[in-house]
Amino acid sequence: MAASPRATLLVSCADRMGIVARLSTLLYESSCNIITSDQHTDDQDGHFFWRIHFESQRFELTEIRRRLEAGIPALFSDLQMQWQFFEAERRDRMVILVSKLAHCMMDLLSRYRAGELEAEVAGVVSNHRDLEPLVAAFGVPFTFIPVSKETKTQAEERLVKHLEGVGCDSVVLARYMQVLSGDFLRAWTKPIVNIHHSFLPAFVGSQPYKQAHDRGVKLIGATAHYVTEELDAGPIIAQATTSVSHRDTVRDLTRKGKDLEVAVLARAVHAHLRKSVIVHRNRTIVFE
Amino acid sequence: MAASPRATLLVSCADRMGIVARLSTLLYESSCNIITSDQHTDDQDGHFFWRIHFESQRFELTEIRRRLEAGIPALFSDLQMQWQFFEAERRDRMVILVSKLAHCMMDLLSRYRAGELEAEVAGVVSNHRDLEPLVAAFGVPFTFIPVSKETKTQAEERLVKHLEGVGCDSVVLARYMQVLSGDFLRAWTKPIVNIHHSFLPAFVGSQPYKQAHDRGVKLIGATAHYVTEELDAGPIIAQATTSVSHRDTVRDLTRKGKDLEVAVLARAVHAHLRKSVIVHRNRTIVFE
Amino acid sequence: MAASPRATLLVSCADRMGIVARLSTLLYESSCNIITSDQHTDDQDGHFFWRIHFESQRFELTEIRRRLEAGIPALFSDLQMQWQFFEAERRDRMVILVSKLAHCMMDLLSRYRAGELEAEVAGVVSNHRDLEPLVAAFGVPFTFIPVSKETKTQAEERLVKHLEGVGCDSVVLARYMQVLSGDFLRAWTKPIVNIHHSFLPAFVGSQPYKQAHDRGVKLIGATAHYVTEELDAGPIIAQATTSVSHRDTVRDLTRKGKDLEVAVLARAVHAHLRKSVIVHRNRTIVFE
Amino acid sequence: MAASPRATLLVSCADRMGIVARLSTLLYESSCNIITSDQHTDDQDGHFFWRIHFESQRFELTEIRRRLEAGIPALFSDLQMQWQFFEAERRDRMVILVSKLAHCMMDLLSRYRAGELEAEVAGVVSNHRDLEPLVAAFGVPFTFIPVSKETKTQAEERLVKHLEGVGCDSVVLARYMQVLSGDFLRAWTKPIVNIHHSFLPAFVGSQPYKQAHDRGVKLIGATAHYVTEELDAGPIIAQATTSVSHRDTVRDLTRKGKDLEVAVLARAVHAHLRKSVIVHRNRTIVFE
Repeated sequence: MAASPRATLLVSCADRMGIVARLSTLLYESSCNIITSDQHTDDQDGHFFWRIHFESQRFELTEIRRRLEAGIPALFSDLQMQWQFFEAERRDRMVILVSKLAHCMMDLLSRYRAGELEAEVAGVVSNHRDLEPLVAAFGVPFTFIPVSKETKTQAEERLVKHLEGVGCDSVVLARYMQVLSGDFLRAWTKPIVNIHHSFLPAFVGSQPYKQAHDRGVKLIGATAHYVTEELDAGPIIAQATTSVSHRDTVRDLTRKGKDLEVAVLARAVHAHLRKSVIVHRNRTIVFE
Repeated sequence: MAASPRATLLVSCADRMGIVARLSTLLYESSCNIITSDQHTDDQDGHFFWRIHFESQRFELTEIRRRLEAGIPALFSDLQMQWQFFEAERRDRMVILVSKLAHCMMDLLSRYRAGELEAEVAGVVSNHRDLEPLVAAFGVPFTFIPVSKETKTQAEERLVKHLEGVGCDSVVLARYMQVLSGDFLRAWTKPIVNIHHSFLPAFVGSQPYKQAHDRGVKLIGATAHYVTEELDAGPIIAQATTSVSHRDTVRDLTRKGKDLEVAVLARAVHAHLRKSVIVHRNRTIVFE
Repeated sequence: MAASPRATLLVSCADRMGIVARLSTLLYESSCNIITSDQHTDDQDGHFFWRIHFESQRFELTEIRRRLEAGIPALFSDLQMQWQFFEAERRDRMVILVSKLAHCMMDLLSRYRAGELEAEVAGVVSNHRDLEPLVAAFGVPFTFIPVSKETKTQAEERLVKHLEGVGCDSVVLARYMQVLSGDFLRAWTKPIVNIHHSFLPAFVGSQPYKQAHDRGVKLIGATAHYVTEELDAGPIIAQATTSVSHRDTVRDLTRKGKDLEVAVLARAVHAHLRKSVIVHRNRTIVFE
Repeated sequence: MAASPRATLLVSCADRMGIVARLSTLLYESSCNIITSDQHTDDQDGHFFWRIHFESQRFELTEIRRRLEAGIPALFSDLQMQWQFFEAERRDRMVILVSKLAHCMMDLLSRYRAGELEAEVAGVVSNHRDLEPLVAAFGVPFTFIPVSKETKTQAEERLVKHLEGVGCDSVVLARYMQVLSGDFLRAWTKPIVNIHHSFLPAFVGSQPYKQAHDRGVKLIGATAHYVTEELDAGPIIAQATTSVSHRDTVRDLTRKGKDLEVAVLARAVHAHLRKSVIVHRNRTIVFE
């Protein structure tokens, strides 16, 4: 074993005295050194959340995982601790879904190219062919899965098969202009990050910039969230706003909003990929 | 006449070629020098808006007003130009309405004390006595007008009389926790600026920070708007947001939100007082 | 003449009564309708600045230009009015200079592809070959002009010739890692927009993120400015900052800073291309 | 013992495996429940920092302190661990120093009045009498200590005596327009938080808004830092910036900057008082 391998542990359970002590002792006794540790206890329902990033100075990570699998139930049997274990070297395989608008996809691919995205981009899937040449320039596989009202069910089945086929861990909807059905979400249960072009819960649904202009707001926003069955209602990961004025037409809002969408989606994807997010009752804990 | 007196002219009408030329020539022929000029044409409905701040280098402002009264209908009779004329020396008399929360009122009074508010604060009115000593420390008159469910009509009548009595031009609701009735708004037709503690149109009504926490948003906001009969639906003057996280309880949101409320209300009041705002179809043009 | 052609007029001169009236009358008499008008008078030195965007409802723009050329000296001979006239249809031909870092260039090309950049990208020039395939994917010409210590003079001469050859109006340094010499700047006198990766005037010169980290700042910044002979000292067009914390290493600052650089450069380039910037004594007037 | 008493522990030392495990076990064995825990390891010099906020479910905090005093040297003798222990109930006694500008002081006193400041304001000290009535309205003691060039030494001696006399823990310079001498800083070694009205390290020293205007920046900033002997060079706690434009005169920058100063100082004072700041080599770790 050359360098010390690193891993991230996400933990959530009902709070009780001694969790930090016992769990960090378990890691210590396995010769793991904690690099960063972030803990949060919800004041309202007393739930406990912990993110620990550590390096194993003696054992392979498979051995560490084995010890956690044995130790956690033994130590915390009454707490029904939920935990996730991620090896740092084992990056997520990510698939980007996109329609015709390039900006969010281009930004993610640029970050990927610059080595800043903690993922392997397994491919781009689109219901249009427009972006195929740009994707090719990044050396990333492009898959065309057209969707029409009539073929939606088959298209979604094809999509599930494709995601499974490429070993996808995380899906990003980078302005994918199709609503994923409940059937799809039940078939594909791994995380899906979406960008919505408004400051949710304001302006749900279609044409949010038009809605924003009509209301005469002085800020527009963007929201990245995990996809759930209820449209635009999933757990929010990141949001941002930017100033607009009476001079801005709907077209200007759309243009300015694109920069927000890019920034917010990138922030959410980054947090998701580095395993900083825990979902709890339709809210997210996002460790920085 | 010592120094050149200054004035602001706000103009709105249907757009047509030559408005700027004719109106600026009218001012020029009256020996007025334009200091700042801000013009906007709405792309959608072709409406024209202009704010001109100028100094009169020859005549008293009463004479300038007389010339505008004569000249504008003559030049623009077919455009039904709406215009407002404000002498810079004649500051608004402003009344602040407040309940128990001091922060917005304190901020406005501090700015007033520092000579930064382009208004004469004619007084503070409250339905509680709590803030009386603080108001007194600023040398500003305090008026106690209690409101109960039973006395609301009489209290509002008393308020209208009070506002008329002190010669009020503009009312600011600095977290005044009473909804002003339609009867009041028909009796008192001058501008009322309100601060709402959410990013409208999200979280209308009561307990917006509680609503925001429940939805798990990552930003909270504040909105300053002119009061209309429909609650929290009037023309928006200014908005801002600030980041929050899973660590923030409703109490934290409330505390952080207070800073936003202060900042947004101050910005809106400043724009209103310096005559930079034109309302058009439930939207505002805010010239910077 | 199909649709009404549009143009922008930038004007600066010593302030005096009647400039707005006379100039807008000149346009009115030439059947031009002002769409937006933004005026500023510097309080300190009494200088007058005006940006007028208008459409000509009767004449070709060449005729309008002829009338301005005749009318402005006649009307404002004593004011030495400086003016620039830009036909909206005649977009700037822009050349992007870049080295190895792709982010700013990618962003500009993406905006160009989306039809959001008010320019014709005449090409990308680089002192490295790395980005050639990406540039090709956008269908934009790529020119390789290597620079070494020994060949710098010749390389700059070649660059001038290239810029002249493609009819370049504006140059953008999108993280071009070469300092342009005084000789170059005297040979190439058209505007050059640069992005510097700090909040100028803090952290001039090389490795600003390292400097920022050493000082322990809680914000990092980016600055877009016109290039002058003194390094990083030209007129500032746009700036922005973003929060950082003790957790951020120099590498994190570099990564976060890239997003700032992209945003600030895009804003500056947009303002420059839409003819919203006037330079006056090493400061800029940027009309929104 | 009624409710469980709470305390905060700040720890810094060279990093080594097992610190979290050992220290959390020490707390656990003393029946302490960790409420929030924030840990940071500096990648560059491998230093370890930890903030733990906990409640003692069995013992008085004096007993907890005794156990830490015994346990920490025993467990970490070779690490020369530095630690600070703060009882939550034992709030800092804070003294505000101010000159003539009221805004920062007013803001802090307003927060204090609203119960949002985790301190007891032991008094306000000023070298001018102007703000005495406002301070009185908050029921806070006001002390006048005039300073002239000749009396500076005596005034500073009087100040030290005063701070000692009121049992001051933390000093806040809320736009106090006197430079504290090295002699003072050696006599008074407890923390002093200052607000500087620029984005340090840009525009050190006097008249930063004038300097900013001359350079033509598009943002102004404010910086809160701990005071050290070198002027404006101490460890930075918080910074913020806000947009400005060519329209803003030095007076406008000063007015806008005041809002920034208020916000940044409040943020820094809040972090300082809730024991979230560790200083390490002229940089701060600020746990959120």
